[in-house]
Amino acid sequence: MANKLKITFLGGVGEIGKNMTAFEYNDEIIVVDAGLTFPGDDLPGIDVVIPDMTYLLNNKDKVKALILTHGHEDHIGAVPFFLQQLNVPIYGTKLTLALVDNKMKEHQKVSYKSVVVKPKNVLKIGAFSVEFIKVSHSIAGSLALCISTPAGNVVHTGDFKVDFEPIDGVMTDLQRFGELGKKGVSLLMCESTNVCRPGYSMSEKSVGRTLDEIFKKHPDNRLFVATFASNIHRLQQILTLAEKYGRKVAFTGRSMLNIIDVGSKIGEIEYNKDIIVDIDKIDKYADKELLIVTTGSQGEPLSALTRMAAGEFKQIKIGENDLVIFSSSPIPGNEKNVYNVINTLFQKGADVIYDELSAVHASGHACQEEIKMIHSLVKPKYFIPIHGEYRHLRMHKQLAMSLGMEERNIVLASIGMQVELTPNSIKKSGVVTAGQRLIDGYGIGDMESNVLRERKQLSEDGICVVVVNINNVSGEVVGDPFIITRGVVYQDEAEEFVQETRNMIIASLKEQDLRGADPAIIRSAVKRNVSNFIYRRTKRKPMVLTIVLLD
Amino acid sequence: MANKLKITFLGGVGEIGKNMTAFEYNDEIIVVDAGLTFPGDDLPGIDVVIPDMTYLLNNKDKVKALILTHGHEDHIGAVPFFLQQLNVPIYGTKLTLALVDNKMKEHQKVSYKSVVVKPKNVLKIGAFSVEFIKVSHSIAGSLALCISTPAGNVVHTGDFKVDFEPIDGVMTDLQRFGELGKKGVSLLMCESTNVCRPGYSMSEKSVGRTLDEIFKKHPDNRLFVATFASNIHRLQQILTLAEKYGRKVAFTGRSMLNIIDVGSKIGEIEYNKDIIVDIDKIDKYADKELLIVTTGSQGEPLSALTRMAAGEFKQIKIGENDLVIFSSSPIPGNEKNVYNVINTLFQKGADVIYDELSAVHASGHACQEEIKMIHSLVKPKYFIPIHGEYRHLRMHKQLAMSLGMEERNIVLASIGMQVELTPNSIKKSGVVTAGQRLIDGYGIGDMESNVLRERKQLSEDGICVVVVNINNVSGEVVGDPFIITRGVVYQDEAEEFVQETRNMIIASLKEQDLRGADPAIIRSAVKRNVSNFIYRRTKRKPMVLTIVLLD
Repeated sequence: MANKLKITFLGGVGEIGKNMTAFEYNDEIIVVDAGLTFPGDDLPGIDVVIPDMTYLLNNKDKVKALILTHGHEDHIGAVPFFLQQLNVPIYGTKLTLALVDNKMKEHQKVSYKSVVVKPKNVLKIGAFSVEFIKVSHSIAGSLALCISTPAGNVVHTGDFKVDFEPIDGVMTDLQRFGELGKKGVSLLMCESTNVCRPGYSMSEKSVGRTLDEIFKKHPDNRLFVATFASNIHRLQQILTLAEKYGRKVAFTGRSMLNIIDVGSKIGEIEYNKDIIVDIDKIDKYADKELLIVTTGSQGEPLSALTRMAAGEFKQIKIGENDLVIFSSSPIPGNEKNVYNVINTLFQKGADVIYDELSAVHASGHACQEEIKMIHSLVKPKYFIPIHGEYRHLRMHKQLAMSLGMEERNIVLASIGMQVELTPNSIKKSGVVTAGQRLIDGYGIGDMESNVLRERKQLSEDGICVVVVNINNVSGEVVGDPFIITRGVVYQDEAEEFVQETRNMIIASLKEQDLRGADPAIIRSAVKRNVSNFIYRRTKRKPMVLTIVLLD
Repeated sequence: MANKLKITFLGGVGEIGKNMTAFEYNDEIIVVDAGLTFPGDDLPGIDVVIPDMTYLLNNKDKVKALILTHGHEDHIGAVPFFLQQLNVPIYGTKLTLALVDNKMKEHQKVSYKSVVVKPKNVLKIGAFSVEFIKVSHSIAGSLALCISTPAGNVVHTGDFKVDFEPIDGVMTDLQRFGELGKKGVSLLMCESTNVCRPGYSMSEKSVGRTLDEIFKKHPDNRLFVATFASNIHRLQQILTLAEKYGRKVAFTGRSMLNIIDVGSKIGEIEYNKDIIVDIDKIDKYADKELLIVTTGSQGEPLSALTRMAAGEFKQIKIGENDLVIFSSSPIPGNEKNVYNVINTLFQKGADVIYDELSAVHASGHACQEEIKMIHSLVKPKYFIPIHGEYRHLRMHKQLAMSLGMEERNIVLASIGMQVELTPNSIKKSGVVTAGQRLIDGYGIGDMESNVLRERKQLSEDGICVVVVNINNVSGEVVGDPFIITRGVVYQDEAEEFVQETRNMIIASLKEQDLRGADPAIIRSAVKRNVSNFIYRRTKRKPMVLTIVLLD
């Protein structure tokens, strides 16, 4: 059927993370973004979480392109897994593709074709025409999209903010959003991260001004700035300040070194190379001549800053003359780790400035008034809020309605949902297989897998392994049962515990006639006895594994 | 030595949680508070965390009293463990002691003496004189203390805020703080929870006004309020509003039912009994006649509200006509759980109001200007900030200095530190055994224990148990090696994995002459081979337990 655009949500709605959306017109699919989510404490041992791409694999021949709005992990993190299975060209700005290239080096060799695009470029793919629109965000090279098909024009904002004084001098292209709106936009898909925050987001330059004040007020301290490596405009401002205040800059942290390397190569970041010093050579400089730019703004356990705070970083000992600036804010879930690092730095005598105390960070996402601005410029017929937990999407729906949009023209999407857009209608049209894929070493699991359940159980109360050897003929227990526990008993309880458990097993088996008995029955009896015994004795419920050997 | 007050910090400094401080003069010790901390995800399987009381046990004969400032768990949660080992009278307000009584019922029978005190009472214990001072906080019956000895007067604020329109009509006793200051206070110990927040905390009554607006605006909805059970003044306001708007009230959640029971009995909460209905009987009432007051404001997995959101609460199905108010804010670390519940409620069609969207909660802790007020009234000679992470204590120190206090008169305390106060001096005088005790069923562990380490390792990558049976004479492997894994391999990999691992073990053992070999050597070889094999095959590193049996 012509004049029908099918939009399939594979990630990024009902969650902030692993963005992936498929746009399908007749026999062609273009995919927007392929992101990952970092697992929380509820997914022990999992490396990363990516979208379930079953729908794309089932429609392999239709998939023509992967378009990346920007280079954050929740938009490009699943690209290697995507390209392993779907060999199509990828499109993005210079920085986005440079970050993808970097990432692909760490994965098994896959050859792929990538095409650099720029704002105002228009890409034709079959019936699709995709226009790229400049937006400001907390990473350079961010794009919104206008995806046109005979079914109508779709404006997809990507992640954006409206920054009236952008570092690169080029603003979110409000004019173009207005022009498109004037011509007629059928559907707006707009991000929702900060839809609960009233007003406007802070400009990136205002962060620079705060940092300038801090640099000026602390001429004698050794300075540290921890920030997101991908925030190239923040790094640009920090480097400019270093030069202004005559400080040498040392970078630490793998991702920081990576981004500086990539950013310099493609000309996204510019600075006097003479001010850069190797972290191994900072001893040559006085405190007041130094600025250390580091990863670890989220309190990541293995990051450079966390190791410095813990006194485990070879080149740097934190002390009284150090001032550490967290030019960042904790991502929800990271608060404890971040404040642990801040507390430790304070305890080592350093002074610490963080976003609770000073305006040293600006969000990259539009707040309410900026979101209203986009709605008012684009004036879409239909609206789907994206890039938010369900509460954000719902709030965004209310915001759209407060601007005059009718409720029936708004769709609240969820992962796996398909929405059909025609020139005169929008509707939910189906549900496809979709969800989370958990990358665990070389394997892939899902939320319902035995592995996660078992790991959680093991982490709660540990494990007790019992091996009993029984002579099948005499029915007697041969030797002592083996008992090994992990994560169950504390050192001072251990010896007594094993001895008592062993005696209990022997005594309970003596009561029965085991000659020719079914080992499965003996096993489950021993298991039950051991579980009950341990619970009575310790009030803990470890996993009990029992092995019965017949001699 | 006379004229010397020794203060030993056993908890509550450098952390928000498990408050406990010992005040020692000659041969007498009085202890202020005995609180617990709820364990985070970093302490799997641990029930609660309490202070290490070694110092008190080593000075058992000196300990004369336990004084409780208020009834929150971080101030009374360790009382049962304290009383099991130290049989001294406990002092607190009626509500505080009623909550302790309730708690003691759940523990092994310990007989103890408790004494109800009121604001303005003065308690004499040996050389100590302890005056109780009324303060406002998020639980009724909260006290500050003025602890006097010949070494000087110490004002200890407990947890407090300055609320100019308190629900019970009795304000934080600013006059008394001023009087004491005028007479001369040697040392102020002031709480620091909100020291990073500028301005004043919201009054409890303003929350009532917001709730009134919401009740008025939603006459037809079924209403739910989730809040902290211990916030009796909040509950009082909610009950008053229910009566005003003609709604019946059903309580759910064990701690909510508890507090209503306790609070009514001692007269801390007053309401028309006719408006209360049993949760099992709410079917008789229309939505607009109902208000359900529930636990679960922190998204606790087993709480009533979380189960309602999940559709697992027998009496209540959440739907389109429901409005759920979170009259609370997420305690740091609980954000994910709270927002999960909010998202689920929205998805079920309910409307949700929470603190990010409306002023439906007020903190119980003083903000900067209130803290300054106390400093200015008490005008102490010396100062120790308490009840805060290190960053709060440090910020509080700066605040005190900005009010004119000299740095050398301020002590930043840490757990285990002893501080000596004389009429003319304050100084750190020593360090004692102190820290965290992890309650795990009937056992007690510490942060360095093997059990936690093992549970963490098990939760990351699971466990693989291998049992090999070898004929000591022929040196041959008897039967197939047993291989059991938990938390390692996903269902679809499992069969192949076990088969390959088994073959690998048999093949590797065949290469060696095992006749008369030392089983310990065979064991470590098998373990090493299995670990390496699994890592190569899956990129995971499970714990490997190997058992070698000799036939």
